[in-house]
Amino acid sequence: MKLLFCGDVLGRSGRDAIAEHVPLLRQRLGLDFVVVNGENAAHGFGITPKICEEFFDVGVDCITLGNHSWDQREIMPYLDSEPRVLRPRNYPAGTPGKGAGIYPAPRGRKVMVVQVMGRLFMDALDDPFAAVEAEMARQRLGVTVHAVIVDVHGEASSEKMALGHYLDGRASLVVGSHSHIPTADAQIFPKGTAYQTDAGMCGDYDSVIGMKKEAATFRLVRKLPGERLSPAEGPGTLCAVFVETDDATGLAKRVEPVRLGGRLAQAMPVV
Amino acid sequence: MKLLFCGDVLGRSGRDAIAEHVPLLRQRLGLDFVVVNGENAAHGFGITPKICEEFFDVGVDCITLGNHSWDQREIMPYLDSEPRVLRPRNYPAGTPGKGAGIYPAPRGRKVMVVQVMGRLFMDALDDPFAAVEAEMARQRLGVTVHAVIVDVHGEASSEKMALGHYLDGRASLVVGSHSHIPTADAQIFPKGTAYQTDAGMCGDYDSVIGMKKEAATFRLVRKLPGERLSPAEGPGTLCAVFVETDDATGLAKRVEPVRLGGRLAQAMPVV
Amino acid sequence: MKLLFCGDVLGRSGRDAIAEHVPLLRQRLGLDFVVVNGENAAHGFGITPKICEEFFDVGVDCITLGNHSWDQREIMPYLDSEPRVLRPRNYPAGTPGKGAGIYPAPRGRKVMVVQVMGRLFMDALDDPFAAVEAEMARQRLGVTVHAVIVDVHGEASSEKMALGHYLDGRASLVVGSHSHIPTADAQIFPKGTAYQTDAGMCGDYDSVIGMKKEAATFRLVRKLPGERLSPAEGPGTLCAVFVETDDATGLAKRVEPVRLGGRLAQAMPVV
Amino acid sequence: MKLLFCGDVLGRSGRDAIAEHVPLLRQRLGLDFVVVNGENAAHGFGITPKICEEFFDVGVDCITLGNHSWDQREIMPYLDSEPRVLRPRNYPAGTPGKGAGIYPAPRGRKVMVVQVMGRLFMDALDDPFAAVEAEMARQRLGVTVHAVIVDVHGEASSEKMALGHYLDGRASLVVGSHSHIPTADAQIFPKGTAYQTDAGMCGDYDSVIGMKKEAATFRLVRKLPGERLSPAEGPGTLCAVFVETDDATGLAKRVEPVRLGGRLAQAMPVV
Ligand SMILES: [Fe+2]
Ligand SMILES: [Fe+2]
Ligand SMILES: [Fe+2]
Ligand SMILES: [Fe+2]
Ligand SMILES: [Fe+2]
Ligand SMILES: [Fe+2]
Ligand SMILES: [Fe+2]
Ligand SMILES: [Fe+2]
Repeated sequence: MKLLFCGDVLGRSGRDAIAEHVPLLRQRLGLDFVVVNGENAAHGFGITPKICEEFFDVGVDCITLGNHSWDQREIMPYLDSEPRVLRPRNYPAGTPGKGAGIYPAPRGRKVMVVQVMGRLFMDALDDPFAAVEAEMARQRLGVTVHAVIVDVHGEASSEKMALGHYLDGRASLVVGSHSHIPTADAQIFPKGTAYQTDAGMCGDYDSVIGMKKEAATFRLVRKLPGERLSPAEGPGTLCAVFVETDDATGLAKRVEPVRLGGRLAQAMPVV
Repeated sequence: MKLLFCGDVLGRSGRDAIAEHVPLLRQRLGLDFVVVNGENAAHGFGITPKICEEFFDVGVDCITLGNHSWDQREIMPYLDSEPRVLRPRNYPAGTPGKGAGIYPAPRGRKVMVVQVMGRLFMDALDDPFAAVEAEMARQRLGVTVHAVIVDVHGEASSEKMALGHYLDGRASLVVGSHSHIPTADAQIFPKGTAYQTDAGMCGDYDSVIGMKKEAATFRLVRKLPGERLSPAEGPGTLCAVFVETDDATGLAKRVEPVRLGGRLAQAMPVV
Repeated sequence: MKLLFCGDVLGRSGRDAIAEHVPLLRQRLGLDFVVVNGENAAHGFGITPKICEEFFDVGVDCITLGNHSWDQREIMPYLDSEPRVLRPRNYPAGTPGKGAGIYPAPRGRKVMVVQVMGRLFMDALDDPFAAVEAEMARQRLGVTVHAVIVDVHGEASSEKMALGHYLDGRASLVVGSHSHIPTADAQIFPKGTAYQTDAGMCGDYDSVIGMKKEAATFRLVRKLPGERLSPAEGPGTLCAVFVETDDATGLAKRVEPVRLGGRLAQAMPVV
Repeated sequence: MKLLFCGDVLGRSGRDAIAEHVPLLRQRLGLDFVVVNGENAAHGFGITPKICEEFFDVGVDCITLGNHSWDQREIMPYLDSEPRVLRPRNYPAGTPGKGAGIYPAPRGRKVMVVQVMGRLFMDALDDPFAAVEAEMARQRLGVTVHAVIVDVHGEASSEKMALGHYLDGRASLVVGSHSHIPTADAQIFPKGTAYQTDAGMCGDYDSVIGMKKEAATFRLVRKLPGERLSPAEGPGTLCAVFVETDDATGLAKRVEPVRLGGRLAQAMPVV
């Protein structure tokens, strides 16, 4: 199967990058399933049902969130009615929405997506290893589902990489989000799971992780509140990870970065 | 000028990667100046004078450190006698060694290197913006020094990127270290400073940020001390950032990642 | 019932304070049950089976631990054989020992003790609210158990106080540990649970939270490793919380601090 | 001299406690100088010039702030015109206001007040040890100033206690704020400096550190944003530290807690 995971979409620049590139990528790369992290889609903070619908309309199959899940409160009831939007699985019992879902892919295949949030340098949720384990325990890759994509929304590279190895041989792709910077460490781990520490942001990289650089820098230099943070508005770069799996095993045959538009060096898998 | 910055060297795998590739890179890329972050060179924890000498012998011009600076205590007196080894500039007054130096480069040129440590999710040192400013204020890029390389040893992508913009137009290269994962966001900022959020580790990537994956994962999953962490011993990848500057201005004309050996996708600038 | 909770015992000074005062307090206050936090009893780091036995010998009924639980590894197998020593309940499944126990008290009564660890500014364990809830759900205060003591081992006063209110009316005493400083906020919450944010350390207060002040201050001032931390060795103050409960309800009728010996202002309930 | 330091005033309950008790305490204890931490006076978040004036009107001589200094932005220009309001000394150069001041006391005496903010588990400011040292270096206790009061606004008990020892013999009183819970560890350190880890909050203790308990607990249990935090509105307890110094040396002869009104056990020095 051919899978694409697009990192944190940040504001208008990021949404435009999704709208422009996802339809073309679906076609050009022959994608079977597209996941987008949407936690910063609504002017940098959270996501709205309307933006979710726009993503679905351009060919997104599943949306994951993160620590910004609840910035737009109208998403809470929507999460309970729209199974294609996931929040981290390790929120406490009773949290709106779900942290995992199984979705149809072309030719009768099924894709499981799970999101967990890291705990190093982040708000303390429940154990992400146990949370992902609870979902993995119910499925068998290559048997009950044809692909498993795990979004590790986290700050620390160590925790993300440990989760990758923890799932090696049991997931098709373990990919990080939240740092808003794409990493250049795409690889297939020894037992067949594709891994990249962070997919990177879909947004304007002439910024501080997507936000206008003046206000963001002011806060760090002056230690005063200053202006409200808002998204940088230059051309966005779509940052994503492309994986090709073996349908017989669900494991990865190939993993490559995608970077399209904006300021970063462009990357596009040759198919 | 042609500059190379190699990220955190981790243990034997990382040291071997430096010894093997730096001499060839010097020649092939026509390098004028090479900086290496050595904070994890001694079995993952700190660096010794002997390892420093080995680095100098294979063509390294300057070594930077980080939060692991003091793991091998014998480095403390050495720092006071060897100006080519730098620790973060924003340690308190009275700390052994220095956080900045100006070094000779071929054809009478001079290169300033500064290291600062970020404060987000790290031990609280003094203000890295003020610390770097104190060094920048004494020099003028393209006039008193021909190149300025700033190593931002930090966890948070936001803080590193803010420091990059803060120095835009005043440094040749602002590059991050410490996360042990190379980022794919090399770019030249609007006023001419080359930037990459993290150079990545020089070490074995079949690991948890360079350490053997079993012990590192055990700690996160079980929350028990477990075995001592030690470096993974497979083939290392040298991860570095290559910058070409304009001698008239000291600003960047070109920035590209270097990845050689080991498991990661290879990258080599064409010169 | 008359209950006493003694805060973190730190090294020799703390152990001496326990040995000297607990037998007298048992008699003088007519204590029915004594809990001691022992996570720093072994030279400041962890506890050994031998020290546990010494505590039991002088009249301690139950020992709780904390983030230092595993500093002395020989405690791990002991925890599985000695139900009177508890580690935080919210460690992951598979952790040695237990986080809650029900113990006999004079005249056929039963006391439940639960320890949870806070997550703010501490290592991220599982949800302490859910963990304590899991134990509370199986008991009814005043019916199946005559008293419930909850040790909240944590850094943040907000989290401890929130846990106190969360359990108000369901526990006899919610008391904090870990800060090593006694708080002066003992009170009975509106629904009958006694509360104090921190019981304080049993140790030498001419120190930095029990450790020799020179080395501890050096680290913070100089940001260098310096000497190993070791316990201050002056006379210790026993710091504890005394609660008297109503056997019919298990709720608190009275809560008062105890401070005996050493440098702090002395406090002793009048009975 | 007779000095009083009142901890973080929280909203209406705290302001009422100040207005009611400070005038009486001035008289009854014969106070020469009163400092109040006001960082939470304005509905829990920051302070306004109007509230400052109200404090001065009831007998407050100096107001310190903290991490909530800038919650009400109108305080920024006021800080530059009113030297009796201090913000932490270790904010970066260029921050509005000052972190230290010398103020007149009865009979021609002078009192220096300094505030620094801790860095453990808090926003990273500059070194609090160096910041306080810079002020201490210009004065000599008992010679150029008759008393020195240092407010250490911080989370970690270790850092506060280390600052206390660091200043032992050079300050009259080192007292903590920010935890919103009074500690019971008032003592005079070996070289004559009075110390208490936290003065405690002036506010309603049927709360989560002064805020309404339902909303504050909801956030920790549910990990969802929930309602805005707002101050608990029950009767407040004034929490303060009383120190009597020797005018010849400026060192402490006596230190005692004050707790008046509200739910906590009352404490009043006998003079
Ligand atoms: Fe994000
Ligand atoms: Fe995020
Ligand atoms: Fe580091
Ligand atoms: Fe490192
Ligand atoms: Fe502890
Ligand atoms: Fe402790
Ligand atoms: Fe505060
Ligand atoms: Fe406060």
